[in-house]
Amino acid sequence: MRIVVLAGGIGGARFLRGLKQAAPDADITVIGNTGDDIHLFGLKVCPDLDTVMYTLGGGIDEEQGWGRADETFHVKAELAAYGVGPEWFGLGDRDFATHIVRTQMLGAGYPLSAVTEALCARWKPGVRLLPMSDDRVETHVAVEVEGERKAVHFQEYWVRLRASVDAQAVVPVGAEQAQPAPGVLEAIGEADVVLFPPSNPVVSIGTILAVPGIREAIAEAGVPVVGLSPIVGNAPVRGMADKVLAAVGVEATAGAVARHYGSGLLDGWLVDTTDVDTVGEVEAAGIRCRAVPLMMTDVDATAAMAREALALAEEVRA
Amino acid sequence: MRIVVLAGGIGGARFLRGLKQAAPDADITVIGNTGDDIHLFGLKVCPDLDTVMYTLGGGIDEEQGWGRADETFHVKAELAAYGVGPEWFGLGDRDFATHIVRTQMLGAGYPLSAVTEALCARWKPGVRLLPMSDDRVETHVAVEVEGERKAVHFQEYWVRLRASVDAQAVVPVGAEQAQPAPGVLEAIGEADVVLFPPSNPVVSIGTILAVPGIREAIAEAGVPVVGLSPIVGNAPVRGMADKVLAAVGVEATAGAVARHYGSGLLDGWLVDTTDVDTVGEVEAAGIRCRAVPLMMTDVDATAAMAREALALAEEVRA
Repeated sequence: MRIVVLAGGIGGARFLRGLKQAAPDADITVIGNTGDDIHLFGLKVCPDLDTVMYTLGGGIDEEQGWGRADETFHVKAELAAYGVGPEWFGLGDRDFATHIVRTQMLGAGYPLSAVTEALCARWKPGVRLLPMSDDRVETHVAVEVEGERKAVHFQEYWVRLRASVDAQAVVPVGAEQAQPAPGVLEAIGEADVVLFPPSNPVVSIGTILAVPGIREAIAEAGVPVVGLSPIVGNAPVRGMADKVLAAVGVEATAGAVARHYGSGLLDGWLVDTTDVDTVGEVEAAGIRCRAVPLMMTDVDATAAMAREALALAEEVRA
Repeated sequence: MRIVVLAGGIGGARFLRGLKQAAPDADITVIGNTGDDIHLFGLKVCPDLDTVMYTLGGGIDEEQGWGRADETFHVKAELAAYGVGPEWFGLGDRDFATHIVRTQMLGAGYPLSAVTEALCARWKPGVRLLPMSDDRVETHVAVEVEGERKAVHFQEYWVRLRASVDAQAVVPVGAEQAQPAPGVLEAIGEADVVLFPPSNPVVSIGTILAVPGIREAIAEAGVPVVGLSPIVGNAPVRGMADKVLAAVGVEATAGAVARHYGSGLLDGWLVDTTDVDTVGEVEAAGIRCRAVPLMMTDVDATAAMAREALALAEEVRA
């Protein structure tokens, strides 16, 4: 079975770990969000790709969900001693090596997809990890701070501001001119099922879908497309997805997110058992819906979620 | 008193610490060798400038003489895990931060002299540290390995090969086209005395003198130029200076090094008491010479050497 998964960071990475357990023989291609990539200290940092790579490759800081296990922060402390920031972005020493290798390869002319493949040669994530695009896309968030409206990089909004101010708009700058990375459209075209993990529908999956050709390829693939709600009981399971959902005029409910994707894209939708009342509303929108436990408390629980998603896909197919 | 010092790495840095103690009120300008600079992992590394900066700024690994105190090597270990080398060059995590800041500033268009000044704003070395040139100069060493003659970067010869094969030639590539960095010729022109610490006469001081204009400015400054022999008892005090001296046809003796600099450049020369027999030979070559203890065993001993050098300069002046 060939599965294509659109993934953001922590939520996507943890779901993939469950999916690998649920479908050990599946051929999994992950299309990773690169809209939250950022240049720091002259280095190219790809937080979502790295979170997937580290999580599936056994290098992740399990508690934190991002960054490397057994990490130290001497480079960052020294940069701060030179007065060089930002200090709000937590790059560890081991993590720095990844960005140094990536930046050096990009500088030598390799596209991000080739760089990602080279990095994965070490981590062996057990999936094929593709960036959504080799072109630069950078998610900016329009905010109003002290009466002044300005656009900040998504990482600044998410990490520095902790989404403490309202997002007035979320714009994946460069997406319209971006092309899907080599292999992305081919993987979708050959997939037996496409899954949307419980990742952020706006800044993770939404950004991937904003790359021209990807949404269309998924809609026209003629295979089941099944998603899992990142909203449980009218709140994001983790992160601050409600803030960016508001910016695109979508309520932070499991049902509203399904309708935001729409029946033209989505065939099946899993909501948490807490949100069983939503099932009728989603089905009325033309999307098959089931209520199952959606808390990724451990790998077994996550694998059960993945099995439910695959079962719903089979139901859709039949 | 305005003192100009030409400095390589460890020997130059340690001498400078003694000089600062010997002449606490002096205005010291250090012209640092950049011929052993190297690009590693896409980063610009300036070993000699950093050794001077860390040593005088209190950040040096005292025992080793280079690199940072209290250092860790996680970035390097991770780079090796990616298969990215060279592994033979010891870059620590704290040290990496310096190279990241430098590379970012160079990329933003600042010349190396401005970058060095910015880095020194943190370290406060108590001297004005200038690179010999803002232009790229890279010392290469011609060697014969398994019958094949090839040129290797000085760091590869020194650090990887540990000077275990004969150096057939030492070439400061780019030196002929290089210009002295801003402030270098001015500092020499305003100096009351010019000192050559017990640094490598070929790959450290020799490289600085190879930048057109620097040797001439020193020779024509009309002030005492005094050097300290890096050779004691026919062997380098530290390092493998004999290997590169052979490449330029100079014996590894205190007297031969003085004659290599020549009376057109050098007015005074200090040799170790062990080499007292050499004094006559050096004076016969037109260079005033004294035999004094030249082992930099601690800062006090080094300060005594610096005082001897300044005393010899006064003798020359008188």
